[in-house]
Amino acid sequence: LNRESAHPAPAPALTKQRLRLWLKLLKTSSSIETSLRARLRDEFGTTLPRFDVMSALERHPQGLKMSEISGLLKVSNGNVTGIVDRLVEDELALRVAVPGDRRAQRVCLTPGGHEAFAKLATTHEAWVDALLGGVDQTDIDQLIALLDRIATSGEE
Amino acid sequence: LNRESAHPAPAPALTKQRLRLWLKLLKTSSSIETSLRARLRDEFGTTLPRFDVMSALERHPQGLKMSEISGLLKVSNGNVTGIVDRLVEDELALRVAVPGDRRAQRVCLTPGGHEAFAKLATTHEAWVDALLGGVDQTDIDQLIALLDRIATSGEE
Repeated sequence: LNRESAHPAPAPALTKQRLRLWLKLLKTSSSIETSLRARLRDEFGTTLPRFDVMSALERHPQGLKMSEISGLLKVSNGNVTGIVDRLVEDELALRVAVPGDRRAQRVCLTPGGHEAFAKLATTHEAWVDALLGGVDQTDIDQLIALLDRIATSGEE
Repeated sequence: LNRESAHPAPAPALTKQRLRLWLKLLKTSSSIETSLRARLRDEFGTTLPRFDVMSALERHPQGLKMSEISGLLKVSNGNVTGIVDRLVEDELALRVAVPGDRRAQRVCLTPGGHEAFAKLATTHEAWVDALLGGVDQTDIDQLIALLDRIATSGEE
């Protein structure tokens, strides 16, 4: 049985188109991320990982353990430690003891930290609004539905 | 003239939706990138930046200066130097003199480098095909058209 001629390899057109889509997706995402990083640096003297740590703390007012921050952000504990150290130095975050666990600590934002993050988040949202100014509500709904197909396809 | 009451702030719904789209885009892109990084590491013992350098060299058989590689990849010269050093050690790339410019060098892939990259690229393409298996040609066309709107909106 000559399986090769009975079942010729499928035309690679769709494969090539998926690769093209992936490169387009990566380029779009990287370009927005690069722009946001530059603006955070130039206008606030801050970094995207620091913004992300503050954002995670903002969403968890009861505080987060270091390992929980790393898990939420998918960055190494080492990086999170450095970022949290700086936030504590800047009085934007503080470490609090966990009752019943002498070695554990939770990190939470100070009132000043909440205030600083609110300003950052408002400006960040306006930047994203401008960067994505070319898409309207219909485009957004379509894009999210299509991106959902990508996101679930890898888990099958 | 009370401009605030004459022109109330626009409803933030679309702004919030654009932020939601950006987070979705970032999550989709990061999740694919993380998967590709892990597979390159586990199955080929290589990294995405090294793959990207080889890919750039593959597309430029006449060779590239170090600064050209950095520009194409948007990574620092320092990182590119380390990656190229390793490729040269592994006999996958070599540095050649530029006629008429004693200090300049171009980097190009060796025949072994082309061969190694071809294997990597074929496997990488199959991974992307599987990761994006949930989208068909119609989805891809729609996604690329919609992503094009995002990509150009920031340049207005």
